[in-house]
Amino acid sequence: MSVIYQRVALIGLGLIAGSMAHAMRRAGLAGEIVGTARSAETREVAREIGLCDRIVDTAAEAVVGADLVVLCVPVGAMAAVAQEIAPHLAEGATVTDVGSVKREVIEAVGPHLPEGVHFVPGHPLAGTEHSGPRSGFAELFDYRYTLLTPPEGTDPAATERLKTLWEGCGAIVEEMDADHHDLVLAVTSHTPHLIAYTMVGVADDLRRVTDSEVIKYSAAGFRDFTRIAASDPTMWRDVFLSNKDATLEILGRFTEELFALQRAIRTGDGDHLHAYFTRTRAIRRGIIQAGQDTDAPNFGRAPGRKDGAG
Amino acid sequence: MSVIYQRVALIGLGLIAGSMAHAMRRAGLAGEIVGTARSAETREVAREIGLCDRIVDTAAEAVVGADLVVLCVPVGAMAAVAQEIAPHLAEGATVTDVGSVKREVIEAVGPHLPEGVHFVPGHPLAGTEHSGPRSGFAELFDYRYTLLTPPEGTDPAATERLKTLWEGCGAIVEEMDADHHDLVLAVTSHTPHLIAYTMVGVADDLRRVTDSEVIKYSAAGFRDFTRIAASDPTMWRDVFLSNKDATLEILGRFTEELFALQRAIRTGDGDHLHAYFTRTRAIRRGIIQAGQDTDAPNFGRAPGRKDGAG
Repeated sequence: MSVIYQRVALIGLGLIAGSMAHAMRRAGLAGEIVGTARSAETREVAREIGLCDRIVDTAAEAVVGADLVVLCVPVGAMAAVAQEIAPHLAEGATVTDVGSVKREVIEAVGPHLPEGVHFVPGHPLAGTEHSGPRSGFAELFDYRYTLLTPPEGTDPAATERLKTLWEGCGAIVEEMDADHHDLVLAVTSHTPHLIAYTMVGVADDLRRVTDSEVIKYSAAGFRDFTRIAASDPTMWRDVFLSNKDATLEILGRFTEELFALQRAIRTGDGDHLHAYFTRTRAIRRGIIQAGQDTDAPNFGRAPGRKDGAG
Repeated sequence: MSVIYQRVALIGLGLIAGSMAHAMRRAGLAGEIVGTARSAETREVAREIGLCDRIVDTAAEAVVGADLVVLCVPVGAMAAVAQEIAPHLAEGATVTDVGSVKREVIEAVGPHLPEGVHFVPGHPLAGTEHSGPRSGFAELFDYRYTLLTPPEGTDPAATERLKTLWEGCGAIVEEMDADHHDLVLAVTSHTPHLIAYTMVGVADDLRRVTDSEVIKYSAAGFRDFTRIAASDPTMWRDVFLSNKDATLEILGRFTEELFALQRAIRTGDGDHLHAYFTRTRAIRRGIIQAGQDTDAPNFGRAPGRKDGAG
């Protein structure tokens, strides 16, 4: 793989930015990687572990001479960052982002960017429950989708070049309309996260009653929810506030179906339950076939150990 | 480890029974393992893969001369099996089960058992989304809890002996009151499963609108839900019908909290969301510390491959 961009500026140094740095280095895709983060502590850690070729103190500084700028900050912080970097962007540079919501990012960032700068919003469908500059790893995007949502009128060559970068990072890249993206993600990611947060919150309330048992005996089911619910609070707050309509729409459908199942439990309608549970099995098989998860039992997870070393 | 029971009869040959057979053999805990299942096909597969020392056609036959009988059938089938085996049980034998609900099992099985037979209900907190005679493996119970809920008046020696068997299978064994068990499990397992089933059902409806995108782009979040929702439909139908009160109680709390979060999204109350999401992180840390899950990102799951081989 050859160099796609001479200088890549990463604004924000969390899980996604860090993984991009590792993945770009793995394939030699960037001439130089410049990074910055708002927190001095984050910048210090990034310097210490050599995450980028150069760490600078401000976003304005980071974008100077960069032909690719990647906004890796929470969706709620995008507008301010765009405003800060706008005067310093190089002619012909491409600005992209990795936010989980696309319509609001387009509206927050687009108006600030000067003529002659390309804006190609993006969203890698990959992540873990960890965050911060130490959490990244080169393989995060391998065989995962990255969706690009270029607004109408975007230079196709700029989109194509960014696509090549993501493919070099291991991803499968597709283009999609921003609104459609936000609806699909409300189903596959945003609403499930909200539900997981809620369930963990309920358990936490109950924990005061049952002491530590809820944690101690958290077998499959709840345990998987807690992993989801351990994700970065700021990022997720911004996701829900900025993808409000689609999330509320899917939540409405969810509540409707949940009430139907609740009623089946209350009235003892076993046939309804059995038919519903049988139907949901099929969608899981589809996911295995689409190659987006492993078929190994329990995700191939090793048994936990009492000492937490597992 | 030495032999704990001379002859163990496994009634039902799914994931739990199969894993028990493997685990008992690993440690040499049973003189002979006899198995049976209602389905001729299951018995055939079990014979083919040598799952037990002997496979017989009926539960009545299986329990003859056994000093331990393990009921590994769905909760709804327990009463009928208990009735069938009762006349054939050996004097002094112990009957146990592996059902996810304990009060209803005690009420379904207890009355059928003759004097001189010990009844020690149990529940291993372990499982995967797979089922059937080929799905078992010896490590399933390692470092996981198995809860025993002996009714008042149970011979402590019978409980102790069963405890030793489970420990030999790798489990951490604790005793608990049956009703309390059912409440704790409603929080940690039953309600999360119902919610996961519901979310996958919603996505399935929407799939007809968005074609296969919901499957294709199922990143973390939804993907974890589908694994949970792929579990055995009959087993789960029985769980909800037989742990109705506790499940409905927890569902009520869940709906209440979900509506509060939904309102925060609608009104744009970011502080409420952030505080809630921060709180749920702590419970996850507790689970890691309790050794009931791995801290590896994404469960240490290998990246999926397009060909599904991952």
